[in-house]
Amino acid sequence: MQDRKKLENLEKISKLIRYYSLAMSTAAGSGHPTSSLSATELMAGLLFGGTFRYDLENPENANNDRLIFSKGHASPLFYSLWAVAGTVSEKELMSFRKFGSPIEGHPTVAFRYTEAATGSLGQGLSIGVGMALNAKYLDRLPYRTYVLLGDSEMAEGSQWESIQIAVHYKLNNLVGVIDVNRLGQRGETMYGFDVEAYAQSVGSFGWETIVIDGHAYHEVLGAYEKACRSEKPVMIVAKTIKGKGVSFLEDKNGWHGVALKKDDFDMAVKELGEIDYSVRGEIPPPENVKPQFVEPQPAGTITYPMDKPVATRNAYGKALVRIYPQFPTMVSLDAEVSNSTMSEIFKDAYPNRFFEMFIAEQNMAGAAVGLARRGKIPFVSTFAAFLSRAFDQIRMGVYSDANIKFVGSHAGVSIGQDGPSQMGLEDIALFRAILNSVVLYPCDAVSADRLVEEAAKHWGIVYIRTTRMPTPIVYGTNETFVIAGSKVLRKSDGDVVTVAAAGITLHEALKAYDELRKQRILIRVIDLYSVKPLDEATLRDAAKSTGSIITVEDHYPAGGIGEAVMSALTPLTVPVYSLAVHKRPKSGMPAELLDYEEISHKSIVSKVKEIMWMRERQASTG
Amino acid sequence: MQDRKKLENLEKISKLIRYYSLAMSTAAGSGHPTSSLSATELMAGLLFGGTFRYDLENPENANNDRLIFSKGHASPLFYSLWAVAGTVSEKELMSFRKFGSPIEGHPTVAFRYTEAATGSLGQGLSIGVGMALNAKYLDRLPYRTYVLLGDSEMAEGSQWESIQIAVHYKLNNLVGVIDVNRLGQRGETMYGFDVEAYAQSVGSFGWETIVIDGHAYHEVLGAYEKACRSEKPVMIVAKTIKGKGVSFLEDKNGWHGVALKKDDFDMAVKELGEIDYSVRGEIPPPENVKPQFVEPQPAGTITYPMDKPVATRNAYGKALVRIYPQFPTMVSLDAEVSNSTMSEIFKDAYPNRFFEMFIAEQNMAGAAVGLARRGKIPFVSTFAAFLSRAFDQIRMGVYSDANIKFVGSHAGVSIGQDGPSQMGLEDIALFRAILNSVVLYPCDAVSADRLVEEAAKHWGIVYIRTTRMPTPIVYGTNETFVIAGSKVLRKSDGDVVTVAAAGITLHEALKAYDELRKQRILIRVIDLYSVKPLDEATLRDAAKSTGSIITVEDHYPAGGIGEAVMSALTPLTVPVYSLAVHKRPKSGMPAELLDYEEISHKSIVSKVKEIMWMRERQASTG
Repeated sequence: MQDRKKLENLEKISKLIRYYSLAMSTAAGSGHPTSSLSATELMAGLLFGGTFRYDLENPENANNDRLIFSKGHASPLFYSLWAVAGTVSEKELMSFRKFGSPIEGHPTVAFRYTEAATGSLGQGLSIGVGMALNAKYLDRLPYRTYVLLGDSEMAEGSQWESIQIAVHYKLNNLVGVIDVNRLGQRGETMYGFDVEAYAQSVGSFGWETIVIDGHAYHEVLGAYEKACRSEKPVMIVAKTIKGKGVSFLEDKNGWHGVALKKDDFDMAVKELGEIDYSVRGEIPPPENVKPQFVEPQPAGTITYPMDKPVATRNAYGKALVRIYPQFPTMVSLDAEVSNSTMSEIFKDAYPNRFFEMFIAEQNMAGAAVGLARRGKIPFVSTFAAFLSRAFDQIRMGVYSDANIKFVGSHAGVSIGQDGPSQMGLEDIALFRAILNSVVLYPCDAVSADRLVEEAAKHWGIVYIRTTRMPTPIVYGTNETFVIAGSKVLRKSDGDVVTVAAAGITLHEALKAYDELRKQRILIRVIDLYSVKPLDEATLRDAAKSTGSIITVEDHYPAGGIGEAVMSALTPLTVPVYSLAVHKRPKSGMPAELLDYEEISHKSIVSKVKEIMWMRERQASTG
Repeated sequence: MQDRKKLENLEKISKLIRYYSLAMSTAAGSGHPTSSLSATELMAGLLFGGTFRYDLENPENANNDRLIFSKGHASPLFYSLWAVAGTVSEKELMSFRKFGSPIEGHPTVAFRYTEAATGSLGQGLSIGVGMALNAKYLDRLPYRTYVLLGDSEMAEGSQWESIQIAVHYKLNNLVGVIDVNRLGQRGETMYGFDVEAYAQSVGSFGWETIVIDGHAYHEVLGAYEKACRSEKPVMIVAKTIKGKGVSFLEDKNGWHGVALKKDDFDMAVKELGEIDYSVRGEIPPPENVKPQFVEPQPAGTITYPMDKPVATRNAYGKALVRIYPQFPTMVSLDAEVSNSTMSEIFKDAYPNRFFEMFIAEQNMAGAAVGLARRGKIPFVSTFAAFLSRAFDQIRMGVYSDANIKFVGSHAGVSIGQDGPSQMGLEDIALFRAILNSVVLYPCDAVSADRLVEEAAKHWGIVYIRTTRMPTPIVYGTNETFVIAGSKVLRKSDGDVVTVAAAGITLHEALKAYDELRKQRILIRVIDLYSVKPLDEATLRDAAKSTGSIITVEDHYPAGGIGEAVMSALTPLTVPVYSLAVHKRPKSGMPAELLDYEEISHKSIVSKVKEIMWMRERQASTG
């Protein structure tokens, strides 16, 4: 029963939060107060209305209800909630947007109550899906996940990926709240105040929808109570007023992302009326339920006989199975291609740890962020080319300090006949561009197997590139592989040039070695299985010994292995020649395409000879 | 009236197309026959049922109805249609997936009837949106755009972006056809055969929906006839059988992307019964309506006084207005941030050439591909960081030979207080990775203005990076700027080092120059406004003259300007020192952040001195 005192307290809290939202953005000179004002009752009603359960001293408590601001720009509101909860001071609030403050312009995990960084719209619901999946299927905990959504960001397709998947996985522990305040950044949204339109669309996918007046506390509280009893995911669709509480802001276009100047701020505060700065809201702590926990056991072992080629994508699937006992927090996510990425090998062994995410890579990546934030190690797989669909989510994962392993199969032109739409040719560049990422590209099943384990041990975003076709086994069972490592596979005192490659082209380099050796030309061959970070010491040594480096990659040139090597060697001045894919690829057999793109052993041999010839010429004319 | 003879002919056509789909994939040893078999009646009914209008001799005819295979893997079906139309031979069909054949694994524009390359799922509807927008609002032509959709790819959020936008823009000239065959690649889709679920969801957004048996020609033809009369975009939801026509394939999991081996192929052909290999379908030509055409006029002029800083994003908006008379095929698309990207300046001047695409970057990019294929020059803008949301679509645009200009604002940490979610820090790497792209990064309003014009003149994908804050005017009105050009802004015979920068850091370089000059140290300063392709000659010259290059960029290191310069100079061996953003960014004032990330003038001065010191040391110990 919503008692009168509670509602009075909530009304006071509204005023204080509105004051905070205005004050912090005015102090910062920037921010999004009007976006915060529209959702004040929605959020205060959630946190302090009795529904939400949270252990304020312990944001990491596995039993906490989770609150995600998909509309991350309403950060003033977000931070203010915790101030009203009593654990963030007004002084901290006023450090909003100041350099060094954890109270950033959009929430990042520098602020202890941020579940996951947001600010790039349309991602919060997928993060919520991840946390809800975790609660229902992994930790088996009763917490609920709440996601505050802007109406404008419902145009983002990724939200509709999340909406579909949430029903498929029966996430009745997931509650979305759409703040329908009609106004986006530069004008009205597509649906304006048509709350029924949102309710109808979301509802058509199978969510329970509850339409309310987003400023009427009794309706807000009623909606949350009802949501707790639902058998389906719940979408509360709330009609609100952008800038609510300040007459000259209410429902007015042109105030998005505008902080009030002092004069306007004073006027606004006056309008709020009497503010009780001491009012606080209570959040009851959650029930203490023990999450599912499995004691790590030693990983299994696997042997790859030297005489049978195996695709690294197959080795990937097997590696997941092998290491899982040691990493029982692992989960595997795939986007409807598990029989191509071979994550199905893991799915068949541990079906409860595998989540089919369908052809919806954005949601998959966002859900991975949510799962990672709840202590899981997601291995997220699809074709390398299709991981690019989720780049914005992966980029944002950095600011959540997310621990996720992305695995892209079908790398390069060497996939063959399917043609360029299926070829990963930019993926190394994309994942190298992710701050502090690790990029691994094993050439054989043994290194692939070991590197999957290294990836699992490493904290952070790791990308593993796998190959479609079977490739020869290069390494013996006892070889070890480390992030930032490499393997010098061929070496002599007479090496004229170093050829550094990874994955499919490493095998081309070995073929080139054999061909050149017949002609009494010796080259150094390095397997750069760790593309980022690179084994700089080994590269420098090889550069100094042999005088030139040729890099070979089944990838476009920009941002790839060639540029990575140049970047690692500089300012050491050794010529680096980069063989990469320059021509628009097409369908064809893998060997045809490697030749066409001049990244096959033939081109490597040519390049070595070209370098030798140039040196001779320089020596004779020099 | 659907007459009996027509239906009989269509049934014969079905058989022939099924034969072709099976034969071409069997000959290639790969391909997606079962995905082609399920949509045979849907497509044959469309092309040969009397609805579709197409000038077979002239695929570029502006009046042609447009057919897009969003489910691009059903390419055998796609190619077979044109064989039945009589303009593709069986021999050509059998070159499917062979190296050098335009009949590729997934359709690319190498094949003359391909409207736009597909194969990365979930993009076809957005391309269709672009073509429909063109018909309704730009060319003002009566053609219809048809998009064949897979059920599995309806999980992709981008489709729902398109679905929302199509209603907003009243695209009643857009028809989608969902081939609900229940089976994705690795198993059942989320909705199986629940055609009503698709109809309900799509319908809830405001599309007219027509549910049919996808193999019953009278229903198929009826649906297309009805679609022609609709006031809304139309979604035909067709229940189909994957592998239809071959008993051992029908509705069986495990046959996705599997070509039949010879024995199975022979069995399948037997089951098809008697095939009339000579049957052909007729496609009436379209009415010859003249598209809207505006004669190009000379572009306007604009002057930027040297004493007033202007943000390059503002110069961008103004440049669009200035050049539009010369490029009347231009259109501007923006994702709900036109008052930030400043495309609103163009919107206000030419509202009929501006399309608000709301917060749905994927659909925006796909629509741009559609518009480009219909002869328009789309300028597509949002925050640099959010363009990454559409990377997969941009990547696919290459294989459509798309002529699109992407413009990303709010580049770098220098945007300040909004924090990392809003900062473009990977965008240079992303756009450099796009095959044959051009990447431009003007430092001032004058160069921004000129480069927008150069971008418009250039055919292909161009990326222009713009800055949030006002920056000083560097160039006089008469300066010219070209793709692959650069400007040497400071030069002397005594330059100790070259500093190469672009955009915001170019100004830091100029400040560093002034500081160093006071200390009698001279540096060369180069404005690399064309990041790709780079002005290699100027860089080499500077490298040889000054002995070292320092690059400075407000961007993460991987794949950025530093690596671009290293890549351009190699194998010339000159040390390149790259100053870039290495630390996780945060909120703060722009100047604070430039200092924090060590890319401000202070860090440039430091680096110059460090290099000088190292040289002295080498000289004394050497």
